This record gives sequence, structure tokens and C-alpha cells, in this order.
Amino acid sequence: MDIDFSPIPQIEKHGEFLEKVVDLMFKNIVFTTRQDKVLLWQTPEELEEQFDFSLKQNGETHDKLITFLRNTIKFSVKTGHPYFINQLFSGLDPYGLAAQWLTDSLNASVYTYEVAPVFTLMEKHVIKEVSRMIGPQWGDGLFCPGGSFANGIAVNLARFHRYPDVKEKGTFHLPRLIIFASEECHYSIYKFAAFLGIGEENVCRIATDEIGRILPSDLEAKINQVVLEGKAPIMTIATLGTTVRGAFDPINEIADICKKFNIWLHIDAAWGGGLIFSQKHRAKLNGIERANSLVVNPHKLLAVPQQCSLLLVRDTDILYQCFSRGAEYLFQKDKHYDRSFDLGDKYLQCGRKCDVFKFWFMWKAKGSSGFANHIDTLMDIAEYFEEQVNNRSEFLLVSKRQYMNVCFWYLPRYLRGKSNIFENIAQLQKVAPQIRALMIQHGSVMLGYQPLKGLPNFFRFVSQNSALTRKDVDFILDHIQEIGDAIFK
Amino acid sequence: MDIDFSPIPQIEKHGEFLEKVVDLMFKNIVFTTRQDKVLLWQTPEELEEQFDFSLKQNGETHDKLITFLRNTIKFSVKTGHPYFINQLFSGLDPYGLAAQWLTDSLNASVYTYEVAPVFTLMEKHVIKEVSRMIGPQWGDGLFCPGGSFANGIAVNLARFHRYPDVKEKGTFHLPRLIIFASEECHYSIYKFAAFLGIGEENVCRIATDEIGRILPSDLEAKINQVVLEGKAPIMTIATLGTTVRGAFDPINEIADICKKFNIWLHIDAAWGGGLIFSQKHRAKLNGIERANSLVVNPHKLLAVPQQCSLLLVRDTDILYQCFSRGAEYLFQKDKHYDRSFDLGDKYLQCGRKCDVFKFWFMWKAKGSSGFANHIDTLMDIAEYFEEQVNNRSEFLLVSKRQYMNVCFWYLPRYLRGKSNIFENIAQLQKVAPQIRALMIQHGSVMLGYQPLKGLPNFFRFVSQNSALTRKDVDFILDHIQEIGDAIFK
Repeated sequence: MDIDFSPIPQIEKHGEFLEKVVDLMFKNIVFTTRQDKVLLWQTPEELEEQFDFSLKQNGETHDKLITFLRNTIKFSVKTGHPYFINQLFSGLDPYGLAAQWLTDSLNASVYTYEVAPVFTLMEKHVIKEVSRMIGPQWGDGLFCPGGSFANGIAVNLARFHRYPDVKEKGTFHLPRLIIFASEECHYSIYKFAAFLGIGEENVCRIATDEIGRILPSDLEAKINQVVLEGKAPIMTIATLGTTVRGAFDPINEIADICKKFNIWLHIDAAWGGGLIFSQKHRAKLNGIERANSLVVNPHKLLAVPQQCSLLLVRDTDILYQCFSRGAEYLFQKDKHYDRSFDLGDKYLQCGRKCDVFKFWFMWKAKGSSGFANHIDTLMDIAEYFEEQVNNRSEFLLVSKRQYMNVCFWYLPRYLRGKSNIFENIAQLQKVAPQIRALMIQHGSVMLGYQPLKGLPNFFRFVSQNSALTRKDVDFILDHIQEIGDAIFK
Repeated sequence: MDIDFSPIPQIEKHGEFLEKVVDLMFKNIVFTTRQDKVLLWQTPEELEEQFDFSLKQNGETHDKLITFLRNTIKFSVKTGHPYFINQLFSGLDPYGLAAQWLTDSLNASVYTYEVAPVFTLMEKHVIKEVSRMIGPQWGDGLFCPGGSFANGIAVNLARFHRYPDVKEKGTFHLPRLIIFASEECHYSIYKFAAFLGIGEENVCRIATDEIGRILPSDLEAKINQVVLEGKAPIMTIATLGTTVRGAFDPINEIADICKKFNIWLHIDAAWGGGLIFSQKHRAKLNGIERANSLVVNPHKLLAVPQQCSLLLVRDTDILYQCFSRGAEYLFQKDKHYDRSFDLGDKYLQCGRKCDVFKFWFMWKAKGSSGFANHIDTLMDIAEYFEEQVNNRSEFLLVSKRQYMNVCFWYLPRYLRGKSNIFENIAQLQKVAPQIRALMIQHGSVMLGYQPLKGLPNFFRFVSQNSALTRKDVDFILDHIQEIGDAIFK
């Protein structure tokens, strides 16, 4: 038994162990190839059998610990694999990973300057630089544990902006508050509406057009109706890059309406916002500078390791006004340096992981031009993917592509070339899940699917991994077709 | 220039770089000694001069990148150093660190079983085991990004439990909701009361006794008063291990009162809850099983790397009821496995870092007995620290120690042995900040201070680093005395 209870690593005891861990990671996760599987599928019941999750009174030897790590890797999904095209994150950037490892070794909590001096100033620089890329009046922001949380913070800011006494008094004296959001918005809007005491039914759903964009006329009509009913509209949430279809709402028209009714405009650009780095595609974000707040997740499009979510605000005072509490054991009034460098008091949280470093370090390593190349490469691949779907009779596009998201059906033979493939929706509903189950069981490709607005289950191709090539696209479509053709004869 | 835009690491290009990074971390962070400084203090202005934060169009060479990493380490606080006794976290556990590195390499998001199979089952096992250690009726929980967030979730659960239609309708139809909390509770209670639309003024402050514990008689009186005023008491928040004094509220008496008035009892045991591992000190948590919800932060007492916060609930259905939304692009109804393994839908967030693995792996490495030894060692050191403060005329205890926290004043010569040292509070108020500023400028010791309930600034000793010895305690007190004696002649 080789047990040590000390939390200070000692080189003679732990050096060799940590070196083995690093070696294991290098060989089995960091440097993967297309020949590796994306995952080794096991049902929950099978995994329970094969993995020793038990927690015991006594510790284990280093040899056993290495085996546990090896098994953790073996049965985990390789999210850095090019065929992991399942979520709005993927890829494994070596610079991002190096920075994340360093962040963990330093184990900082970014609330006061004295405890996290480098990361405090780095946050200020990164927020300033991203703000500059958004527009001239932008200048403050927060790193949040995920885009959902950042959207929730924005709802709170909008409410506070309209009714500053909410912080002190709550909402008991207020009329019913209403949030307007696309019927294709991210579900976090509903979750945080409930959490903030606003309620899911007070999220007013705005209709979208045939490719998933908010219809401004519907927004204006709904605001008028809500005002007539004596309710209080507090904000509109537009999306740049919706989750399923990658749709970009018409920001300028929405901003005009918000201005007319004097309501807060929040933009959920968690997925699309990274386009600020690409000259070629930046126009998709036109109008973004007109928002009052917005979310960009560098851990999505830019492939920064999770999590890295940035909430930006136009009003540079509101974060402190809305969130400060001045806890005296952290933010002492008699410090020996300028307290405005203690960023923690503008946050909702207390202890907070350092999420800026990996983003800053990747930016240093690649430069803005590196992010731009990454994006442009991805957009080319998405364009090729859409082209292939359109060219092959075995596939059908759900709606015109606007971004990385390519939404498509695989069509069983009996549906190809038919004029109304939706006659039997229940039949098509089953196709994607069945193909996907087999791909997962093979461990070959992880590709998501979902229904939407009455349309039966369709696949959503989406990638943030710029190592993906046209040959990969061909392989993925061939693979789906091969499995589909075998199941649906 | 050695730039690569690919997010897939390639062994020939990135292997050497990552090896250098690991070597740098091993030599400069992981294996520190007492001879190293805790920090190399620079004012924000000085650090701006010395560190290149700039973000540019083009990337940098690997050599330059290594220099940036080296500087990041140089100017960052070594939170693993034994003389970092500044926060409710410290220490650098090699097993925790190894697990954190692996988590980052796998870059998982724990929302569905298929994307994070190992971590999903691991969460279930760890929550089950910790629940078992709390009490027989416990069985569900969440990993949260920090204790503040976990407290906020608990407030939402208490409100939902009393008024389930809040999720749908918001709070507009409700009477004023009231939360009861100690006047020494953590400030997150106020921040989340504001965030949830309840309002800071609806947190009713309960008086504490001379060592910082809630006075049950005051709690009962305040609940009666609030009910008379037509307001709706929804919950009491008790604390096991308060932030400043480490006080343990009398849970059984508080639970009796909550039962009488039928209100939710939440226990903020973020700091004290780790004691469940110590047979010797477990009695401090007596009554904990009577709560409806509670928070334990393994990243505090147990020195798990940040962040690792566990919210536990007694009612095993309430998390799904309160938080589920069933987003169909993640939680498809037609999956090829049992959907109850998709934990994401009981969470408020969508994407979520894997915080369970480092805790599980440390538990495997040390066993429950390892955590117990860690705690008992720390408690011995705290006891010795208090003893020394009491034995030395240069120091004065603020209030009797209950836990790790030892709160004390350094007394300048002219105050030693005086009967009323508080005659000139403004004078004593300045002592701790001045001594602390010098210690930070020396980089020798990081030790926090704060005022409390009208008492002037005092130091708070607190450590989670079980490598700390009695000799270290002697050094720390000698050091404070030496600096104090030099300043206050």
C-alpha cells in the first residue's frame, strides 16, 4: 500500500505517479487519430459491471489508481475526436489544454486581486478587447459558468435596470414581468425565468420564419398585446446562432422595436458570437452592438476548453450596482491597494474558477488570425456538408443552412423522391434514432438529432473541430447511408 | 513562427510543447517548499508593466508561449503553499490534481449519459455514498459551480416546495416570502435572495450568541412576528461552520422550530460538512440529517481542487420536478437507453463541468480514513494555534474556537494586558491591515482579516492544508509579532 494523506505533493512520493498520469493522457486522449473509436459504448448496467465505482475505508495503491484512470479514459467519450459532432463543443486544442492544466495547478479563485493578480488583470484585458470588437460603447463583462447561467444573469440585469429596487425589495410589488424570446430560443431562458421568480409562462414565444429567425412583426404585435394586458415587458432575447438550426435573428429590426418600447435587448450569441473573429463571416452579427447585454461562449465556436462563457454589458456600472454586497471578509475597505481591482463583488458567485486563462492563452498562441482561420475552415466544411446533402437523393435538408448547423434527414429507400415524405410522420420519426443508436454502438460517429416545430426527428451536423476535412464529411454521410440502407430495406 | 491552427493536437507538433508545460508546472507549482514565497507581490500598476497581456493579430512562438506561462506562475499566488491561510480553500492534492488534469483532457459536459457515461454513474455513486453518511432518508443531489450557487438552488427548492406553481407562474401572486438566516451567514444568501426576486430585505437576520451561533429563541420570535405581519416564511438557513468564526448553529433546536412552523430547513455546511468523514469530530454535525437540503463543499475542508460543491436534498423527486424542462435536442424521448440516466434535466444549467471525478479519485486514493486523518490533523493544528494565541500576551482571542477558524487580534505593546482594549476602536481597526500589507509585500504569509459585529479588524487563521505543522504555527505567530512590534513601537 502506497498511501499518503498529505495534500502537499512531495516529489519523491508523487512525482513518479503524476508522470505516469501525464503519459497515460498523452497516449490515450490528447493524441488520438481517426482510427480510434469515438466511444466504447456500454449500457449503464454493463458499465456498472465493468467499472469499480466503490468507495472504501482505505486507500488504493498507485498501480490500482492508474488502472482506474485507464478505465475512466477507456469508457469515456473522446470529445476531441473529429467524429464527435454531437454538441456545440468539440475539439481538443493543445494550447487551451496546457492553459487549463496550469489553471488547475494554481487552483486560484478569482475574486480578489491579491489572490489572483495575473488572472484579474487578464480578465480586464480580455473583456476590454472583446468589447472593442463588439462596438465602441462596450466595456464590462463577466466570465460565467456556462451560457445558461450567463443568460440568467442578463435577465436579472434587465429586471434590475427597469426596477432597481428589486435587489432590495424583491418583485412582490411589481406587475407581471414579461420576457420575449424566439420559439427556437435556448431552454435556459425558461429555466432561469422560473429560477428568478418570473415564471415560465411569462416567457412570451415569438414566432420564427421558415429558417428559424424571429419574425419582427410578431414581436411587435406581442409586445403591444402584453402592454394592453397591463403586464410589464422587461426584455427581448434574440439569438445569433440558435441551438438546433443555427439561425441568426434580424438584430437591427429587433433593436428598433426594443428602442421604440424602451425594453432591454439581450443577445444570446453563445454559439454564434465567436464570429467576431472572422472578417469573412462577421456580417452575420450585424447589429450586435445595439444590444444591452450579450453572451459569447468561447468554449463553443472557438473550441476553448470548457467552460468559458462571457457575458458582456454595455452599461459599465450596472454589474457592480446590481450584484455588489461588499462582504467584509473578502472586500475589506482598508486594503493596501485599489479595491476596484477586486472583481468578485460584481459577480453573483463567491468562489470562481479562472476561465479566462485558457482563452487568453489560445489567443496569444494563434492570434486573432488563428481564430479567424479556424472559423473559416469550419464554415467551408459546413458549406460542403450542405452541398453533399443536397446532391444526394438519400438525404433531405430540413431548412437552408445559415451557419455550421446542417439539419437533414436520411431518407429510407421508400421515401426517396417522394413529394410528401411527411405523410407518415411516425415512420420518419423513428429513422434518426435507430441509425444513431447503431453508430453509437459501433463507436464510429456521435451525431445528434431532434424533432422541431412538428417536424419529425432529423440529424444536426455541427462541428467546432477545424481538423475535420471534406473526406471526413464524405465518410460521415456514407456511413449514415450504409447503416440506414441496412436497417430500412 | 511556430503556429498551428488545428484544434486536434498532433504528436510531432505539440508533444514537445506540452511536455515542456508539464515540466514547468512540476518544477514551479506542484512541488513547492516552505522556502518558496507564497506570492511575489506587485501592485496592479506594476504588474501591468511587467506582464504582456496584449492580444494580437498573429500568434506567438512556442518559446514565447513558455515564457508567458513562466510569468503567469511567477506572479500568481501559490495557493498550495502551507502559508496560504487566507481562504476556505488551500493545499494542492496530487490525486485531486491528476484527476482534474484528466477531466480537462476528456473535456466532457455532464448532461447526458451517452456523452459522459463514466462521470454520470460516478455522480450517482458519490451522491449516494455521501447521502448515506448524512442520514437514512437522503438520496439525491447536484454538483454545483460553487457553494453560493448551491445555496441559491436551495432557496429555489424551498420556494418551489411551498408554492409549486412558481415554476410556471412566477411569484407575482404570492405574499412576501421570507428567508431566515443567521446574522453571520454567508453573503451568498443575500445575493441569491436578490437574484431570485425575493429581495435582500426579505432575508430576516437572526441574532447570534457570543461565539456566533444562531439564538433559537430569536429565530422563533422572528418567525412569529413575520407570520403576524402576513408574510410567508419559506425557509431557515442554518450554518455548520460559518465563514468568519467557524460557528456551528444548534441544528436540533432549529429543526424543531422549522418543524413547528412547517418551513424548509437548509443547512449551509459548505465549510463544516466535510466533517462527516471524521469519527472524532462528526458530532459537530449532529442533527444535520434533519435538514431538507444542505451544501457540502469538498473543495473546502477536504482540499479537493476547485470547484467541487455538493447540494444534497432529502426529497428525491424534487430536483426533477423543480428543474426539468425536457429540451428535445439533448433529452430525446426515443433514446436507445434508460433516460433516467440523463442527469442534466434535474440541473438548472445546461453544459456542466465534471466536478465529481477529482473528489471520487481522491476518495479512492486515500479512502474515507485518509480524509478522516486529514481532518483530524487539521483540527489538532487549529487547537494548537488557539492554545498559542491564549498563551501569548501579544495576542488576544476574539471568541472561543469551535472549528478550524481561530480569530484573534495582535495587540500592539500599549494595549497588552489592558482591561479595555476597545476604548479606541479606530486604532485597533488599523493594526491587522497594516501587518497584513507587509506580510503580502514580503510574500511570506497570506492571512485574512475582517471586522465583525462592531468588533475591529481581527485576523482569521484557517487552513485546509494538512501539511501544516506546529512549527509552522510558531513561525506564523512569531512572524506576525515581529512585524507588529516593528510597526507599533
